[in-house]
Amino acid sequence: MPRAVREQQMLDAAVQIFGQRGYMAASMDEIAELAGVSKPLVYLYLNSKEDLFTACIRREATALTRAVRAGVRTDLPADRQLWDGLRAFFQHTAEHPDAWSVLHLQARTHGEPFAAEAAAMRTEIVSFVTRLVAVAAREAHRDPDLPEHEVAGLAEALVGAAESLAAWANTTPGVTARQAASTLMNFAWSGLGALMRGRRWTPPPEGVV
Amino acid sequence: MPRAVREQQMLDAAVQIFGQRGYMAASMDEIAELAGVSKPLVYLYLNSKEDLFTACIRREATALTRAVRAGVRTDLPADRQLWDGLRAFFQHTAEHPDAWSVLHLQARTHGEPFAAEAAAMRTEIVSFVTRLVAVAAREAHRDPDLPEHEVAGLAEALVGAAESLAAWANTTPGVTARQAASTLMNFAWSGLGALMRGRRWTPPPEGVV
Repeated sequence: MPRAVREQQMLDAAVQIFGQRGYMAASMDEIAELAGVSKPLVYLYLNSKEDLFTACIRREATALTRAVRAGVRTDLPADRQLWDGLRAFFQHTAEHPDAWSVLHLQARTHGEPFAAEAAAMRTEIVSFVTRLVAVAAREAHRDPDLPEHEVAGLAEALVGAAESLAAWANTTPGVTARQAASTLMNFAWSGLGALMRGRRWTPPPEGVV
Repeated sequence: MPRAVREQQMLDAAVQIFGQRGYMAASMDEIAELAGVSKPLVYLYLNSKEDLFTACIRREATALTRAVRAGVRTDLPADRQLWDGLRAFFQHTAEHPDAWSVLHLQARTHGEPFAAEAAAMRTEIVSFVTRLVAVAAREAHRDPDLPEHEVAGLAEALVGAAESLAAWANTTPGVTARQAASTLMNFAWSGLGALMRGRRWTPPPEGVV
């Protein structure tokens, strides 16, 4: 069997064990056994538990961002792009719960080098969403335009909401990927949509109780 | 000086150092120096770096949830409650950036016991927001009611959005707490508000490209 194929099998097993047991409790013995190889071979190919975990984070971060990008056709209207992107995101995280646990939970919980890997993926997704919100604002031809700061803030809010909702959907029985996507779309788009039409929620004046 | 006062001074210093340097790089020497006490006294009072960090997380989690609760008057309309809660949240995280870094970043990055402390605070905030969304839905007298699953999902989305936005606001020059609260309120309330009025965003039929 070619090395590349064997390596993918080891990563498959590692994502499953890291995702289900957590980084600390995961044992290299169990990963090797699940991959159907010897433990020395895992070390030979992937070097150490740290390097194996880093390889898992990188592979799964790439797979997730690729799935979201692939789900979106940039020639469609903005609300359709957002819906397709959300659906692709929640479908991927629902179909790969161990990978999502590695990215969202494990990578952020076990030290800065791993957290930095996950943060890089997040930055990429935030800029993808920022572009999408900016396009939506342009499509709406609003005058004055949404300030750049607000577009960036909305993208951050949307990504944070999606992360939180994916973690909740994966641990709450009976919540489908489509339901999670639809909840967030209704939350986000009706809000964003109102903003695009210049309909703001207006805070009460300062100092009023 | 009474022990309780000294302890608070040590915690003040520790939150600042942990928040700015990160948990790993923070030194007990620096914390003791900033608190104006000897290092052995810090160990005598707080036992270990781990226990000191845990005490910081607990204190700051309590302070944040208390600030949010104190900002909200439950006899006001739901949108006003949400706005007041968001404003209290972003004001607190802006005024205590080191505490927010400890709670949002450091506590989640350095092992499961610390992450569990931060998760407990998050659970409390999510249930507070869930109640708020449920009250808003009841006020709107919609028939049929928003399903319970959707209310829980909306609360998760809102909390995730707020966390993400607070981290962004604290690291982006020129973004005030009021702007961050207003961005999220517009994003969230117009969306939630539309939902309450029964105005849903409707997905395109399945299978259509």
